Amino acid sequence: MGHVGRERAGMTRLVCIGGSDGGISAALRARELDPTAEIVVMLADAYPNFSICGIPYYISGDVADWHDLAHRSRADIEALDIELLTDTTARRIDVATHQVSATGATGREQTIGYDRLVIATGAVPAMPPIAGLNRLGPADGAHLLHTMSDAHAVMHSVAARQPDHVAIVGAGYIGLEMAEALRARGIAVSVLEALPHVLPTLDGPLGDLVANELTAHGVQVRTSTVVNAISPEGNELSVHAVPTGTDKGAAPLELRAGMVLVVTGVTPDTALAREAGVPLTPKGAIRADRHMATGLPDIYAAGDCVLTHHALLGETYIPLGTTAHKQGRIAGENALGGQRAFEGSLGTQVVKIFDLVAARTGIRDHEATPAGYKPFTAAFVADDHKAYYPGATTVHVRMTGDLTTGRLLGVQMVGTVPSAVHKRIDTAATAIYAGLGVDQLDNLDLSYTPPLGSPWDVLQAAGQYWLSTSKSER
Amino acid sequence: MGHVGRERAGMTRLVCIGGSDGGISAALRARELDPTAEIVVMLADAYPNFSICGIPYYISGDVADWHDLAHRSRADIEALDIELLTDTTARRIDVATHQVSATGATGREQTIGYDRLVIATGAVPAMPPIAGLNRLGPADGAHLLHTMSDAHAVMHSVAARQPDHVAIVGAGYIGLEMAEALRARGIAVSVLEALPHVLPTLDGPLGDLVANELTAHGVQVRTSTVVNAISPEGNELSVHAVPTGTDKGAAPLELRAGMVLVVTGVTPDTALAREAGVPLTPKGAIRADRHMATGLPDIYAAGDCVLTHHALLGETYIPLGTTAHKQGRIAGENALGGQRAFEGSLGTQVVKIFDLVAARTGIRDHEATPAGYKPFTAAFVADDHKAYYPGATTVHVRMTGDLTTGRLLGVQMVGTVPSAVHKRIDTAATAIYAGLGVDQLDNLDLSYTPPLGSPWDVLQAAGQYWLSTSKSER
Repeated sequence: MGHVGRERAGMTRLVCIGGSDGGISAALRARELDPTAEIVVMLADAYPNFSICGIPYYISGDVADWHDLAHRSRADIEALDIELLTDTTARRIDVATHQVSATGATGREQTIGYDRLVIATGAVPAMPPIAGLNRLGPADGAHLLHTMSDAHAVMHSVAARQPDHVAIVGAGYIGLEMAEALRARGIAVSVLEALPHVLPTLDGPLGDLVANELTAHGVQVRTSTVVNAISPEGNELSVHAVPTGTDKGAAPLELRAGMVLVVTGVTPDTALAREAGVPLTPKGAIRADRHMATGLPDIYAAGDCVLTHHALLGETYIPLGTTAHKQGRIAGENALGGQRAFEGSLGTQVVKIFDLVAARTGIRDHEATPAGYKPFTAAFVADDHKAYYPGATTVHVRMTGDLTTGRLLGVQMVGTVPSAVHKRIDTAATAIYAGLGVDQLDNLDLSYTPPLGSPWDVLQAAGQYWLSTSKSER
Repeated sequence: MGHVGRERAGMTRLVCIGGSDGGISAALRARELDPTAEIVVMLADAYPNFSICGIPYYISGDVADWHDLAHRSRADIEALDIELLTDTTARRIDVATHQVSATGATGREQTIGYDRLVIATGAVPAMPPIAGLNRLGPADGAHLLHTMSDAHAVMHSVAARQPDHVAIVGAGYIGLEMAEALRARGIAVSVLEALPHVLPTLDGPLGDLVANELTAHGVQVRTSTVVNAISPEGNELSVHAVPTGTDKGAAPLELRAGMVLVVTGVTPDTALAREAGVPLTPKGAIRADRHMATGLPDIYAAGDCVLTHHALLGETYIPLGTTAHKQGRIAGENALGGQRAFEGSLGTQVVKIFDLVAARTGIRDHEATPAGYKPFTAAFVADDHKAYYPGATTVHVRMTGDLTTGRLLGVQMVGTVPSAVHKRIDTAATAIYAGLGVDQLDNLDLSYTPPLGSPWDVLQAAGQYWLSTSKSER
């Protein structure tokens, strides 16, 4: 049994379990605040601080060398005097003695003492109830996709199997990004989604715009379709699916594919935390408070393993890299004695799908109503800039406000890449953070020049439209 | 003497003097609020609701037909039952009898009664002290540029004089946009600016980036150069200038140009208001209050003729189309009995110069200090999106915060068109409007996807950098 990272006299030793956004952010922030702290990051794989969100762009070929997906190199991190224990899996946290037991790549057990601990073990892919899936793996061309190891396995399958058709189960962000990535390789792609629209984090009419973009680029999109079995069929896989929802009762579907990606979301990876006695939700997320403290002495948590505080909804689970960065930074600060609070997610998300960008922030009707709001959503379209200047394109907006208070609750946008909806949504996110009413959007002094905007920004024009269409409801 | 727009019994008659952003916005808002009000817009030229900011794109050829520069057509406006009196110059306001005397194109005098009046007479180009300028005009190839008529005159000169070289006096927004427009026509352009940097509304280092962009596109840029005389020289004009500032004492400059544009800012057009007794500043701006009321009974004012309420500086003069739209809308609402207040400009501006975009919001050091702030400005650069995804470009940021309170005071950005600095600045403008501290930028839930951003947005990373570099000062 080894003993890593012997404590330096009088200094705090911070141990982070997890080498992705949450754990690395905690370590970096701790180092900023305390040049003397001893900081150790332990991760189960060999890929510290990799941009998991970048995997589709490695698969597509946009990123030629997977090493480039690292936010920082190992050397960069070590130059900050942060010790990296790669290929090291935490097995047990001894809360009383402040020790973590872990096994390295060779199976050798190590015990590491800590003064403060940050659990940032992230999430694991959800396994949907698909018959046969648990007997299949990358060797059969069946893939989950969440880690760099998964990415390497997909790239191996693409090279070795040369699939001419890939089936993607799940039309969320990663599923659609992978559809684009595989189309960039000239591979036929089918996307199968159980819900009635792709990108279910947007309202249906906006999801349909994205579906049209996928179709226009040769992706076969099948919504309201539940995959219920996958089985090997020679060197290929046979995907069995049944229509659902309004299509229920229609003929079942059978697809042959050289490769199948199952990307239907994630669940918190918290077996380690559970065994240590860290309080969890029924679905397994760590119940950290807004200071990212777990309730166990000196143990903090951050990222995809944690129940998310949402600024409008209270506690929910929204695993996002941006949130993991924020929570990690706060956990690192508070682990060294800070008192910073996580002020909450708004579920802000953006995705580029071919030439379109879809973005959202805040909440939608079906989220707002159970949370006690009285939501009203207005659909609005406007040009991204003055139509007389060449290249104007349409921005589609859905704005949700609270009829009771007039508060802005959420904005969804779909537009072309040049229409900058990815940064327009940030203005909305900032307005929601500040608690602005829809009525106050008119007060914002937003920028205007004819090639890039309008005197009333799209968001302001949408607000004026919301006010006018919701008038009779208020 | 005619009498236009006889009052309908019991209805409010609103008269707006000025057919550009302020006057039209007031009329449109009044119509939204009151379908029965009688609304008259009187304008001195024939171009109601034209996008003056679009003139450079007509000159460049991007907009083939100048009619397309109209935000709305005459028919659109009249369809809202708004009466348009074009080519009608208001000569006198009789405050006591609530009447405006005006002359039409034929010189015929009209008297128009009002219940509520909105003065939106805008601004006129500043005439810098250049010897000989007052004896020159469009027929000589010497132009001011502020109205559609001015635009037609410039186009006429371009066609008739076929200048192979144009001198532009003034390197503000319009001067630089015109430099790009004339380069698009293959014409050589010199820009002459008295101050040490182009685009003086930005800090020098950012102005220099814009100057480099101009130079790279063949524009000759001469800063610290004061034009002191212009004289006819055959069919051309001779521009005489002297170096100033650190270049003072260097040899004077003489340029021959087939056309000269003088674009050195504007001053409020308020002779009419002054004669009516409307309170003005020493420099001639109308002292409207935040409800856009002038202090005279039933008379409101909006736009470039009005002293601007600035959210951080108090009262100042910043003529901007976006502000005119806001103030006009408020004036129209309050003229019909509303109580809305103008919450203030932040001086948000953006300009596209060739492939660069320069944007600013809030205030800079030299503006903040006299206003009682203790400003600190940090210069920061970051990629617009993850460097591993193709096409990442550098965003240059200057962030100003108050050392005493930590409040965000201003942000300036220069980046490429795809870097979306035009909408990134809006996030900053929203944060400043909401009174956020630099420290709070980290709390914003901004969007991220690798092709379009970073997990910490540029603004957040700049904020972290500001906090770290200003630490010893706070």
